[in-house]
Amino acid sequence: MLRTHTCGELRLSHVNQTVTLCGWVQKTRDKGGMLWVDLRDRYGITQLIVEEGVSSDAIIESLRGVGREFVLQITGTVKEREAKNDKMATGDIELLVEDIKVLNPAKLPPFLIEDKTDGGDELRMKYRYLDLRRNPVREKLRLRHKIGSATRSFLDNKDFIEVETPVLIKSTPEGARDFVVPSRMNQGEFYALPQSPQTFKQLLMVSGFDRYYQIVKCFRDEDLRADRQPEFTQIDCEMSFVEQEDILNMFEGLIRHLFKIVKDIDLAEVPRMDYADAMKYYGSDKPDTRFEMKFQELNDLVQNKGFGIFDDAKLVVGINATGCASYTRKEIDKLTEWVKRPQVGAKGMVYLKYNEDGSTKSSADKFYSEEDKKAILERFDAKPGDMILMLSGETNTVRKQLNELRLEMGERLGLRDPNKFSVLWVLDFPLLEFDEESNRWHAMHHPFTSPKPEDMDLINSDPGAVRANAYDMVINGTEVGGGSVRIFEKPLQQRMFDLLGFTPEEAEAQFGFLMSAFEYGAPPHAGIAFGFDRLCSLFGGVESIRDFIAFPKNNSGRDVMIDSPSAISNEQLGELGIDVKA
Amino acid sequence: MLRTHTCGELRLSHVNQTVTLCGWVQKTRDKGGMLWVDLRDRYGITQLIVEEGVSSDAIIESLRGVGREFVLQITGTVKEREAKNDKMATGDIELLVEDIKVLNPAKLPPFLIEDKTDGGDELRMKYRYLDLRRNPVREKLRLRHKIGSATRSFLDNKDFIEVETPVLIKSTPEGARDFVVPSRMNQGEFYALPQSPQTFKQLLMVSGFDRYYQIVKCFRDEDLRADRQPEFTQIDCEMSFVEQEDILNMFEGLIRHLFKIVKDIDLAEVPRMDYADAMKYYGSDKPDTRFEMKFQELNDLVQNKGFGIFDDAKLVVGINATGCASYTRKEIDKLTEWVKRPQVGAKGMVYLKYNEDGSTKSSADKFYSEEDKKAILERFDAKPGDMILMLSGETNTVRKQLNELRLEMGERLGLRDPNKFSVLWVLDFPLLEFDEESNRWHAMHHPFTSPKPEDMDLINSDPGAVRANAYDMVINGTEVGGGSVRIFEKPLQQRMFDLLGFTPEEAEAQFGFLMSAFEYGAPPHAGIAFGFDRLCSLFGGVESIRDFIAFPKNNSGRDVMIDSPSAISNEQLGELGIDVKA
Repeated sequence: MLRTHTCGELRLSHVNQTVTLCGWVQKTRDKGGMLWVDLRDRYGITQLIVEEGVSSDAIIESLRGVGREFVLQITGTVKEREAKNDKMATGDIELLVEDIKVLNPAKLPPFLIEDKTDGGDELRMKYRYLDLRRNPVREKLRLRHKIGSATRSFLDNKDFIEVETPVLIKSTPEGARDFVVPSRMNQGEFYALPQSPQTFKQLLMVSGFDRYYQIVKCFRDEDLRADRQPEFTQIDCEMSFVEQEDILNMFEGLIRHLFKIVKDIDLAEVPRMDYADAMKYYGSDKPDTRFEMKFQELNDLVQNKGFGIFDDAKLVVGINATGCASYTRKEIDKLTEWVKRPQVGAKGMVYLKYNEDGSTKSSADKFYSEEDKKAILERFDAKPGDMILMLSGETNTVRKQLNELRLEMGERLGLRDPNKFSVLWVLDFPLLEFDEESNRWHAMHHPFTSPKPEDMDLINSDPGAVRANAYDMVINGTEVGGGSVRIFEKPLQQRMFDLLGFTPEEAEAQFGFLMSAFEYGAPPHAGIAFGFDRLCSLFGGVESIRDFIAFPKNNSGRDVMIDSPSAISNEQLGELGIDVKA
Repeated sequence: MLRTHTCGELRLSHVNQTVTLCGWVQKTRDKGGMLWVDLRDRYGITQLIVEEGVSSDAIIESLRGVGREFVLQITGTVKEREAKNDKMATGDIELLVEDIKVLNPAKLPPFLIEDKTDGGDELRMKYRYLDLRRNPVREKLRLRHKIGSATRSFLDNKDFIEVETPVLIKSTPEGARDFVVPSRMNQGEFYALPQSPQTFKQLLMVSGFDRYYQIVKCFRDEDLRADRQPEFTQIDCEMSFVEQEDILNMFEGLIRHLFKIVKDIDLAEVPRMDYADAMKYYGSDKPDTRFEMKFQELNDLVQNKGFGIFDDAKLVVGINATGCASYTRKEIDKLTEWVKRPQVGAKGMVYLKYNEDGSTKSSADKFYSEEDKKAILERFDAKPGDMILMLSGETNTVRKQLNELRLEMGERLGLRDPNKFSVLWVLDFPLLEFDEESNRWHAMHHPFTSPKPEDMDLINSDPGAVRANAYDMVINGTEVGGGSVRIFEKPLQQRMFDLLGFTPEEAEAQFGFLMSAFEYGAPPHAGIAFGFDRLCSLFGGVESIRDFIAFPKNNSGRDVMIDSPSAISNEQLGELGIDVKA
C-alpha cells in the first residue's frame, strides 16, 4: 500500500499516529522557518508541515523543491493544530512530515486547480484531465454515477431485469440516420449501431420478461445540434400487462426517487396535460411550467374591428408579461426586433400596456376602444403594471413564435430558476403527422406506438386526428423521457405500416420478424425511455459524456481522442471491401 | 392495471379474494366436466379451474377454445385446492374462473415451452423469443443481471466511481483490429469502436479519480473464434496509489463477493502462481487447477540411455494419468493418435504403466531398466495402477502439447467438474514477446504495462527476460481477468514505445496526449479488466449476449437482427464518402 489513509480522513482521533498519505500539492506556504503544504486527493486536503530545527534539513529541502500538482508520498505524525480550520474536514490536525517521496513531478499547470479557477473554457477543455481534478467538475461525473445507481436500485426493487442488447445490429429505419459499421467478414455489408433497443425490448416482452430495463448507449448520425449528440445514453424500460396509467405511475415513482436521492426534494404529484392543451396554452409540446404566462386566444375580442393584420390572421394569441408596463418605447422596439429575428420569425408584435395609473396604451390604439382593451386585459386577468404581448398568423406558426417569446419573457422576469423544478406529463400526442415534403404520414413517436382505442374509427377517415397512447415527461421545458403503449397484434401493426406508406413487402422485409413474433402470444406492453444525459444535466451533472470526458485537444482544436475520426490504411479499407471516394 | 397479482403470488391467505391474473397458457386438462388451465408468467404458474354446472357455459366454452401460449386475462376467486401440490409455490390454491379475456391468441409454438423442451438447438435459436420463455433460459439472463448488480454494489461500496467513456473514438492500435465507423460529417474519415477504455481510464487516474470502474461494451473486429466475440462486455477497473498487491487483494475481494452472492460459495484465499511455473508445471498461462496432474521434467532421468527421440529433445516432460494403467493397447494407440492430431501436434507419445501387481510396462522398455523406470515413477509419486504419459520436443511446443493432453486426461478422469471452482492468480508475465513474423518485440499485455523495477536493468541487455507487473485471474482454466501496474512516467513510456519499434514521431502521434498528461502529475496507478461474459458463463449464465439474445433467423439461417450486416443505399454511401468495391 502506498498510503495508509486518504487526504480527507485524518481527525483528532489519529493524533500521534504515524501515517502515510499520497496526493497532489495544492499549494505551499513558506514563512518564518515554517513550511506548510496542502496535499490533495479525491477525498480531501490535509495540511503538511515542516519546521526548521524540528524537521531534518533534507526533508525541508525536498519539500521546498516541490511545486503545484507534484505527486507526493508523505509519511509523518498526526498533530493537533494550534489554529484549527473548521472549514476543512481535516482542519483539526496537521501532518508533521518525517519522510517525503516525489512520486512524480509536474509541470506548472496552465490554470489553477481550485474550485474557482482562472482557466477559461478553451484552456480547461484542452487540459480536461487537469480540469477534472477540480471538485466541482469531478462532482458532475460523480453525480452521473449516483443517478445511474439510484435508477438501478429503484428498478431492481420493482423486479425489472436489466438485459444488455447487442450493439452491432441490423439497420432499421427510425427517423434519424444510422451509423454504419463495415463488416470485414461480409465485405460490402454493414452493421448499424442502434438508435434504441426498441425492437429488442419488444421481443423481450414477447419472451415474457415482464419488466425490462437497460441503461444503454444509443447512436444517431445526425447533424450535431445543441440537444443532439452522436452517442447518448438512455434509461430504456418496458413492461408487460400494463396500460398507460401504470407506466405513468411507475416512472413518476422513478423520477420522485431520483429527486429525493439526488436533490433531497420531495416531488409533488406530477401534473398531466394533453398535447392539445400544451400547444394551445404554451405553443409547445414541452412547456416550461416553472411559470404560468399561459397563452390566451383573442380572435373573438380583436377581430372585425378594422385592424387588418389581426382580421386576416387565423389566430391572434397573447401572453401577459406581468409587470412589464414600464417597458420604454425603445425596449418594446427591441423586443419587436427580437421576435422578427429568423429564429423566431414573427412578422410583428402588438403590445397593450396596462399602466400603473389604470390607463392603457397599445400599438393598435387606433383600432380599439378603451372598452375593447379592458376586455383583452380582463381575459389575462391583468393588473396595472402588466403588459400584454400579442402575435398573429397561421395557428401552428404563431403558437411556436409565441412560445419563443414566452420563454424569453420568462427568462427576463427571472422565472426560469435552474434550482426550481417543474415536472409534467404531456399526454395524448397525435399518432401521425403529415410530412409535406414526402407527402406522406409519419409516425410522431415511432411505428410501434398504438392508437387510442377510442380513436380507432378515425384511422381511415381522418388519420391526423387519431391520438396515440403516447406520453412525454417534461422537466423545465426539456423533454426528458417519452414512450408509448405498443401495438402487440400483427394485423394492427400491418395496418400501421400500411398507413406509413410501406408496401406489405417492405413491411415484411423490415419488421416481419417482429410481426411473426406477435403471432406467438405477444402480451400487451408499453414502455418509456429517458434521456440519461438530459436528466443528469437537469440535476447539475454531466450532459454529454462526449463533451465532458473530452480529452486533450490538438493544435487544430480537435479532441485527439474522440473528435477525430481519422483516415484508415488502404490495407484495412481493402479488408472491409470499401473505398474512400476521391 | 391489467392484473392484480402475478401468477407466482397467490397463497392460502388469498382464499376467497377476487383477483385478476395475466399470462400464457402452459397447458390445459379437460376431464369429467372439469377443465384445468395452468397460466404462466415470469413469476410462476397458477392453476385455473372451471367446472360444468358451476361456471357459466360461455366461460367454459371460451376456456376450451384456448391453446398453448394464448395470452389470457383471467378474473376469478381464489379457492383452496383439495389436492395440494407442494412442488408449486402456488400449489395450495387454484383460481375459479369468473371472467376470461383472450388478450392475444397464439399459433402453436414449434416446441414445448417447458423446462425440458422437445426443441432442438436450431429450432430454439430460430424462435429464441419463445425459447426465452423457458425458465432455465430466462434465468441465465437474470443471473447476468445479478452478477452485474453484485459487481456494482461491491465496487460502489469501495468508493469506485463508474464513469461512462465514449464509444465513437479515435482508432488506436491495440493488437486486434478496430471496427471502424465512417463519419458523415468528415467524409472519408472513420471513428473506431473501442477495444477497451484503456487510455480513458488512465487519463481519469491522472485526473485524480482514484478509483474508477465501468461495465462496458468493447469491440474487436477479429475472426470469430470460440472464445472471441465481435462485441463483449468488460468489468473495467483502475486504481491510483496502489501496487500489484493492492489490486490482487481488492479484486480477490470482488470475486469472493460474487461467489458468495451468486453461488453461495465461501471462496478460499486465491493461490498465486508465477507465469514461469504455470508454463513449467501446466504448459499454459491459464492452468485448470481443479486437478493436479502437474508436469514433471524428465531430461535427467531419460536422456543418454540410447532412446534417440528423447535424447534429441530439448525437453522430455510427462504427467501421471492416475489409475490409467488399465488402458489397453488399443486405448493407448487411440490416445497416441489423439496427441498426433494437428490440433495438438505431438509427434508421438511414450507411456509407462505401473501395473497393479507392481510390474512396469513402457513403449520404450528396451531403452530403460527397471531401475530407470522406477526412478521415473518415483518422480511422479506414482502408485500401482497409474500410467505416466511422456512427450518430448522443443520446450514451448512440447509444453503446449502436454497441456492439451493433461486437459484431455482430466476430462476423461472426471476431474473437470463444472460445479467445482478453482481460482488462481498468475503473476510475473514477461513484459515482451518476440514476434518472429514481424521480427520485433510486442507487448505481452499492452504498451502501458510497467516492467518490474528489479528487472529494469535487463531492458537493454535481455528484453525477453524482463518480467512485467502484470497479472491474470484464471478460473477453471479460463482467463477471466487480467491487468497490470501501469507506466506513469513519460520517459519510461517513451522507452517502452521505442522497444516496441515505434519511432518517436509515431509514438507522439498515437499516444502523445497520454505522455503529455503524464507530465502534469500522474499518480502511480494499476488496473484490471474482467471478461464479464466469461464470468457469467462460468457462473452458469449467458456467455455471449450476442449469441444469446439472437432473435429470429431468416430462411438462409442468418439472424435477422444481428447476424446480418446488410447493404446500404448508394445515397447513404455517398453521404459517407465511401464506395463499396466491385
